[in-house]
Amino acid sequence: MAPAEHPRMSDVAERAGVSLSTVSRALRGAPGVAPAVRENVLRAAAELSYVVSRGASSLVTGRTGRIAVLVPFLQPWFFGVALAGMNTRLRAAELDMLVYQVGDVEELDGYVRSLPLRSNVDCVVAVSLDLDEGEIKQLDELGLPVVFCSQRVEGRPSVFIDNTGAARGATQHLLNLGHTRIAYIHTRDQTGFSWSSQERRRGYEQAMAEAGAEPFVVSERPGHDGGALAMGRLLSVSHPPTAVFAESDDVAMGALRVLRRSRLEIPEAISVIGFDGSDFAELLDLTTVAQPVFEMGVRAAELAADIVETGRPSTAQVELPTTLLVRQSTAAPRRSRNLTVRAAPHS
Amino acid sequence: MAPAEHPRMSDVAERAGVSLSTVSRALRGAPGVAPAVRENVLRAAAELSYVVSRGASSLVTGRTGRIAVLVPFLQPWFFGVALAGMNTRLRAAELDMLVYQVGDVEELDGYVRSLPLRSNVDCVVAVSLDLDEGEIKQLDELGLPVVFCSQRVEGRPSVFIDNTGAARGATQHLLNLGHTRIAYIHTRDQTGFSWSSQERRRGYEQAMAEAGAEPFVVSERPGHDGGALAMGRLLSVSHPPTAVFAESDDVAMGALRVLRRSRLEIPEAISVIGFDGSDFAELLDLTTVAQPVFEMGVRAAELAADIVETGRPSTAQVELPTTLLVRQSTAAPRRSRNLTVRAAPHS
Repeated sequence: MAPAEHPRMSDVAERAGVSLSTVSRALRGAPGVAPAVRENVLRAAAELSYVVSRGASSLVTGRTGRIAVLVPFLQPWFFGVALAGMNTRLRAAELDMLVYQVGDVEELDGYVRSLPLRSNVDCVVAVSLDLDEGEIKQLDELGLPVVFCSQRVEGRPSVFIDNTGAARGATQHLLNLGHTRIAYIHTRDQTGFSWSSQERRRGYEQAMAEAGAEPFVVSERPGHDGGALAMGRLLSVSHPPTAVFAESDDVAMGALRVLRRSRLEIPEAISVIGFDGSDFAELLDLTTVAQPVFEMGVRAAELAADIVETGRPSTAQVELPTTLLVRQSTAAPRRSRNLTVRAAPHS
Repeated sequence: MAPAEHPRMSDVAERAGVSLSTVSRALRGAPGVAPAVRENVLRAAAELSYVVSRGASSLVTGRTGRIAVLVPFLQPWFFGVALAGMNTRLRAAELDMLVYQVGDVEELDGYVRSLPLRSNVDCVVAVSLDLDEGEIKQLDELGLPVVFCSQRVEGRPSVFIDNTGAARGATQHLLNLGHTRIAYIHTRDQTGFSWSSQERRRGYEQAMAEAGAEPFVVSERPGHDGGALAMGRLLSVSHPPTAVFAESDDVAMGALRVLRRSRLEIPEAISVIGFDGSDFAELLDLTTVAQPVFEMGVRAAELAADIVETGRPSTAQVELPTTLLVRQSTAAPRRSRNLTVRAAPHS
């Protein structure tokens, strides 16, 4: 059946055999509509290719049905998984997901400034961003609630892990294996987004201090390249470390590349541990601290959906657990180590 | 300065010292407004926290300022990079990006059916999806143009690579090195999205046929796991291949994991080639066919922005080039091969 040229809400009501207000409530996802009735209305609307004018409807409900998700990057594994988690939960809430990549603090500021000019959203989910008080306040003035994903902000709805505790545990694992010369690869760049990075470094430093071991931190740019550069530096000092803790799996992978090209066996010559629990860590048998990224996305979307549905602010603090996945890249150090010759395969 | 409670367009006009219609045109991004004037208006609007009612404005312009991007997955490297490319270009056009993950044909169908009920968009970009004629027609009835990214559709705006030609070239490379027992790892699953996969397989089969070599295709599920399963099968036949062409880098990485765990040296024991040119292929020194994924995203967004701005349909066919990146994972086959003992390091 060909759809009418411009079907109206009354056409949907007639086809579904319900009142106009029932159609309106069903299409908005408002409560008080029986599931079967709602399905009827949705089917009738779909059959007629009825187009809800969100603009008009939002004048009534004050809702746009959209969530803005801000990410510093779209490419890394972490963000794809987090977005997939959010997408799943937002679909269940019938909310649409606008995605903005704000690659640095300046872009973020530009986004926040341009918000009044953009299509409205009901809520903002900030993923792994360091929104400062000024930026949060600017969003407040627009009346937009902000949910923090992968960042803990006191008094604000946040989903996060205990980065410090997890990093302390990973460092403790290396100490327990007998390592004492443990280096930490830390990254910093111009994005200004560095919350997790700082927290993890703190955990490493705490564990080293508790063990009376000397911390050894190298800072490089983020990503594979930073990991590779850092590993190069670590292999160039007079007493190279016997173990390396990289602040993320991405960074660890750059370090692994250098070790592979140097024909240094892992873990015989050097132990390596990452952070994230990415698919690639598994492929490379990398010991890592796994965080539940998909679940973080789901939970952040859930907080956002709740805020939108109830219209009530939230201060929920959702801490999710991490897991140390011990794989082949970490082992007790060899008594006698010589980085200048190729290590023999373990027997 | 505290913003007014509910600033109106006239407040913006007064502050910027321009007419109401100039404000309207500037905020809509309509032509005929000098850049300096436009900037003035945007600044005034930002300072007042003026909120454009897109709903109201779209009644006038017929535009929503939003593009829907449909992807089968959010997690794989490919989609993150493509989205990053789109995001960059859409921002320049001041278009917002709604992202929907439609993991299989059924979900895609659900999305298309629900479109009339969702917030309106001006254009849909379908990334690596096989929209069938019926689904395309359904979008047509809604008056929504569709841009295809990473899929060639005749008569429709499409951005794509020559998968068949690129796969033929990669296979030819292995043949030129002296391989004749070349296996192809092909994936198929329940998503129904398989266009690139089919095209690449065809290129492999063409090159093998031209060389008079026997094709040897194994099909498994997608991703790392599929690659690992396929490699296991290939290592279990009576005459294992001397080279393996995996339809994607992800699949190749699963195969590499099996080879590493089997202590088979690459490329001495077996050559491996992938497809995509992902970051991880570089990290693992994997020979691969690189496709310009970011650029594909940019170009698809550009087609979408053009269609939205001009209101004219497009049939642009944008073919982007691929590059064979020869790395350490492919080499001429050894005369005598014995997969049952560990291959010695090359001297």
